[in-house]
Amino acid sequence: MAQGPETIAIIGCGLIGESWSALFTAHGHDVAVWDPASPAAEPLLERVEGARRQVRRIEGRGTERDGRLLVARTLEEAVAAATWIQENAPESVPLKRELYGRIEGAAPPDAVIASSTSSLTWSELARDMRHPGRFVTAHPFNPPHIMPLVEIYARDAALRERAAGFYRSLGREAVVLNRDAVGHVANRLASALWREAVNIVAEGIADVATVDAALVNGPGLRWSAVGAHMAYHLGGGGEGIAHYLEHLGPSQERRWATLGSPSLTPEICAMLVEGVAAEAAGRSIAELEAARDEAITRILAARKEARHAGE
Amino acid sequence: MAQGPETIAIIGCGLIGESWSALFTAHGHDVAVWDPASPAAEPLLERVEGARRQVRRIEGRGTERDGRLLVARTLEEAVAAATWIQENAPESVPLKRELYGRIEGAAPPDAVIASSTSSLTWSELARDMRHPGRFVTAHPFNPPHIMPLVEIYARDAALRERAAGFYRSLGREAVVLNRDAVGHVANRLASALWREAVNIVAEGIADVATVDAALVNGPGLRWSAVGAHMAYHLGGGGEGIAHYLEHLGPSQERRWATLGSPSLTPEICAMLVEGVAAEAAGRSIAELEAARDEAITRILAARKEARHAGE
Repeated sequence: MAQGPETIAIIGCGLIGESWSALFTAHGHDVAVWDPASPAAEPLLERVEGARRQVRRIEGRGTERDGRLLVARTLEEAVAAATWIQENAPESVPLKRELYGRIEGAAPPDAVIASSTSSLTWSELARDMRHPGRFVTAHPFNPPHIMPLVEIYARDAALRERAAGFYRSLGREAVVLNRDAVGHVANRLASALWREAVNIVAEGIADVATVDAALVNGPGLRWSAVGAHMAYHLGGGGEGIAHYLEHLGPSQERRWATLGSPSLTPEICAMLVEGVAAEAAGRSIAELEAARDEAITRILAARKEARHAGE
Repeated sequence: MAQGPETIAIIGCGLIGESWSALFTAHGHDVAVWDPASPAAEPLLERVEGARRQVRRIEGRGTERDGRLLVARTLEEAVAAATWIQENAPESVPLKRELYGRIEGAAPPDAVIASSTSSLTWSELARDMRHPGRFVTAHPFNPPHIMPLVEIYARDAALRERAAGFYRSLGREAVVLNRDAVGHVANRLASALWREAVNIVAEGIADVATVDAALVNGPGLRWSAVGAHMAYHLGGGGEGIAHYLEHLGPSQERRWATLGSPSLTPEICAMLVEGVAAEAAGRSIAELEAARDEAITRILAARKEARHAGE
């Protein structure tokens, strides 16, 4: 898994770009960031240093040399010497295609171009590239310096493996898809669940805070330890998923038929906004985010200890 | 929240009944169990004692007096002095209705009758009862001595609150539904997610182990800390769910339209069984369950510490 340091360009430096910058530099890679909004260098460096402290806490790192972090004045300057380019622009196909044209014109010919896109596909993004063989979608879960998941797809199998190796070298859990799909895997799953979460509120079965509490103390908690497929392999009295499918498959299909297909009408949106406000109970978004990050950081440590205890 | 000890009858003592027995007795309640399969008392008591050790570890308890655990020869004997009856029979409406008839004939008139049903509704189960005002569905997440969630519904609002108070006194996170629904809240969410998890495998986007890894390191991990609704309130750059719905609601609706509606055909079932076998990589169900319980036990402790750190 050991790889030499990359020279990285971060194209688009909002929340995701800042978080990537912290992760990459904490692992010794030099980073040049560029954002069309020209973020002021000092507050940016402070935010990245804050995130890097979280990386060090999660990984127990601290002795290695951090990579350098530079704010470039132009995209061309950022990518000129890059070996790895991580693009985090807004989710617009024309905008990203235009950026890839500029990147291909200014970057070394063998630099990898990785997109953090959450909802666009490799095929639509790569369409106009001169060298699509070096293009990979590498979707992190927000914030990428805390959440382990990176979802990878490239048409070229060797690039898929190279990208998986690179993100794993950063302590990420990289997964490789067999083909590209809107929302990759994780956001497809999240969308499917949230559709029913909205439906439960819309149908008056339970309010927003109740739905969230049920998830966090039930299936969400379980899925932080085992996946959905594996969960049906377990918990059935030791008989496994084949037995589950044979005996309870039909009842799952009947339950699927009762799930809802809500629309985000103004009335339903108002219920969601009010419900989240009730659940937040006066806590600001910054406070809630800090509590979430604190919980996830400790849960990551707990999972690591559980794995070691089982070895 | 302090309540006096209940005298509890466990009707149906498979995995769920054993787990409830451990939780109830660990909290000082006397329990009489009855199961038509007449489980041999000694192995049952051993399994319950094993589960009770896990309860003590999670809750840091150990000094209080454990409740007594008796194996009754008949249902009538089990419920004769009960104040709380927890029914965990197979998911069959006629079977459960018949049991409720026998329970109503033999139990004290003010005993609460609680059903652990995962997929049947209060309305269909209560239909033939003489006193449905004392009937409540109280669905735990398996195994209930480890997983905090209990989902509660009764037509009578006072009983809903009484039941919530009782399960909270056992360290559970009880949530109260506004009306009954197939699968309550948690299994509706789990079914919605699993439908798409099956679809992703069926469409060849990713294999079983990849789907599970994406869930465990992405949305599952996140949902062990914050719910699905709250997750959309956060992570959008501090602008909250109203902003999210306005700007990204339409793209969620477009993604919903791309989700699949698979059937559990023999071909798809075979892909799931093979995929889970590959993911298990030779580990037995018992080993996988032990690893899951170890992870969840440590994650519960981590969440508790995170909450204390934030106070």
